[in-house]
Amino acid sequence: MPTLGIDLGGTFARAAVVDASGALLSVAKRPLAERSPTAVVETLAQAAREAVAGSGVRVEGCAVVGAAGQIHKDTGVLAVAPNLGWRNVPLATMLGEKLGCTVQLVNDLSAAAWGELHAGAGRGSQDMLVAFVGSGVGSAIIADGRLVGGAGGVAGELGHIKVVPGGRRCGCGELGCLEAYAGGHNLIALTRELLAAGRSPMLAKLTGGDPALVTPVVLEQAAEAGDEEAQEIHDRAAQFLALAVANQVTVLNPARLVLGGGVLMNCPGIRRRLVEGVQAWASQVSREGLLIVDAELGDDSGLIGAGLLGLSASRAG
Amino acid sequence: MPTLGIDLGGTFARAAVVDASGALLSVAKRPLAERSPTAVVETLAQAAREAVAGSGVRVEGCAVVGAAGQIHKDTGVLAVAPNLGWRNVPLATMLGEKLGCTVQLVNDLSAAAWGELHAGAGRGSQDMLVAFVGSGVGSAIIADGRLVGGAGGVAGELGHIKVVPGGRRCGCGELGCLEAYAGGHNLIALTRELLAAGRSPMLAKLTGGDPALVTPVVLEQAAEAGDEEAQEIHDRAAQFLALAVANQVTVLNPARLVLGGGVLMNCPGIRRRLVEGVQAWASQVSREGLLIVDAELGDDSGLIGAGLLGLSASRAG
Repeated sequence: MPTLGIDLGGTFARAAVVDASGALLSVAKRPLAERSPTAVVETLAQAAREAVAGSGVRVEGCAVVGAAGQIHKDTGVLAVAPNLGWRNVPLATMLGEKLGCTVQLVNDLSAAAWGELHAGAGRGSQDMLVAFVGSGVGSAIIADGRLVGGAGGVAGELGHIKVVPGGRRCGCGELGCLEAYAGGHNLIALTRELLAAGRSPMLAKLTGGDPALVTPVVLEQAAEAGDEEAQEIHDRAAQFLALAVANQVTVLNPARLVLGGGVLMNCPGIRRRLVEGVQAWASQVSREGLLIVDAELGDDSGLIGAGLLGLSASRAG
Repeated sequence: MPTLGIDLGGTFARAAVVDASGALLSVAKRPLAERSPTAVVETLAQAAREAVAGSGVRVEGCAVVGAAGQIHKDTGVLAVAPNLGWRNVPLATMLGEKLGCTVQLVNDLSAAAWGELHAGAGRGSQDMLVAFVGSGVGSAIIADGRLVGGAGGVAGELGHIKVVPGGRRCGCGELGCLEAYAGGHNLIALTRELLAAGRSPMLAKLTGGDPALVTPVVLEQAAEAGDEEAQEIHDRAAQFLALAVANQVTVLNPARLVLGGGVLMNCPGIRRRLVEGVQAWASQVSREGLLIVDAELGDDSGLIGAGLLGLSASRAG
């Protein structure tokens, strides 16, 4: 029976009725006009009702919400949600009361990985590592067909492994995280610094000097056009990403490595370096038979995954 | 009902009858006089029969063998066993025919981790990372109460993550592995090179110039006595280990980190640096509530774990 999946992003809430194959029977999308927990919960509930009404089918009892941030899985509390500026919001309880059903809260990357596993690039696989490089860097781990959540529900935080102990400050407040060198947000910041310092004629040409036009793609273009300082930022990001993912392949021995996120999808140079690094640096036994593929579901992976997680929960419960 | 656990080491075979609490009801130990697969299987079978006879109890049908090396979990083939010089030995089938029962083959560190989880330092935990630093470096991962085996059964190979791409050659044949800088075997080799080069009066004093007396403990003594070149080897090993384990804590978010193996148990300086590194470099959310403890079962962990894995297999089947 179809289930309700919800994706809480930084600017939009989306809800969908998802069938057991991962097909979206109906989708409702609403902007998050106001960001207080109460207002956001009301918006989520409206989107959920609209999706259910639009589907014309009965949905099973349990809704699953995928949200960016640190989740306490057992209590359904969104402990830290940087996009929304929230701390310790009991989102599952609040939304459950509004909808009159059980709500489960999961990390957005976990939901996306679950979607890819059952309806996307991971179909047929039981052991999978999903690496996302977008504005941040994250991963999700599937072992023997199950999501690895960790004791506190924060497993998969690949962006916050340390690559330069004591190095560049990350958005999380710590020093030397992978994300501080390779996340899209930080790549843009580093490239803007270079542009502002007037050290890169190529960047100045590509952007007309406008920092608002700096993107990871522009960084890659400058690097590939031979700009040495842009190359340095680009190379370092690619090398750190490749080594981090290769080492996770060695430790986790997945059958499939699924790549996703805006930086990997839009910067083929970084993606290529990452793949070459995994092929060079993952241990021989772990890279034998490893399939490296791109995520297939795009922005829908989290929504589909949330719906399919609801299906698993209903079956298990 | 009690089960039969078997530990195949490099020089001895041990078999034990293990009860559901992890207590050893009887243990039989035999040297591996001859190392051909046929001879070793015969020795294993003798040890197993002796343990069963000595226990005076009936054991359940499934025996589990923990062995160092790369295991094909589904087929029970020992693909690579460096200690024994074996390749592709169908050990589970061979021993099963001898004993007239089903034999399951697992990696020795997985067996040890399972023992610690249920009868040692991991009791009460569901999410655990076990890091072993002995002659080699390895780990085992427990997620949600289950061993993470990986697609090919070689998950946990922490010793073969790359810490210096293109660096020092490891026993596995690849370059720059953690084990090449921090495994006991390599620490001894590096320290012997230093001794042979005559660059360390402190090492010469501690060993009387005899390379056979070099151990990781001697290296640590020389480093702590102020020998700069010994410090360099020691620091590098400690730093690489600490960063690798800290990063695995970040990615896996275990409730407990269990430390084991001769180097960590006998070199308090390396152990201390590892613990400090995890506390400094694991992400804040992953180190909150993390308990760092020493393995409790010593050499028996693998034997106990193999027995307890047999119990799980009987129950699951």
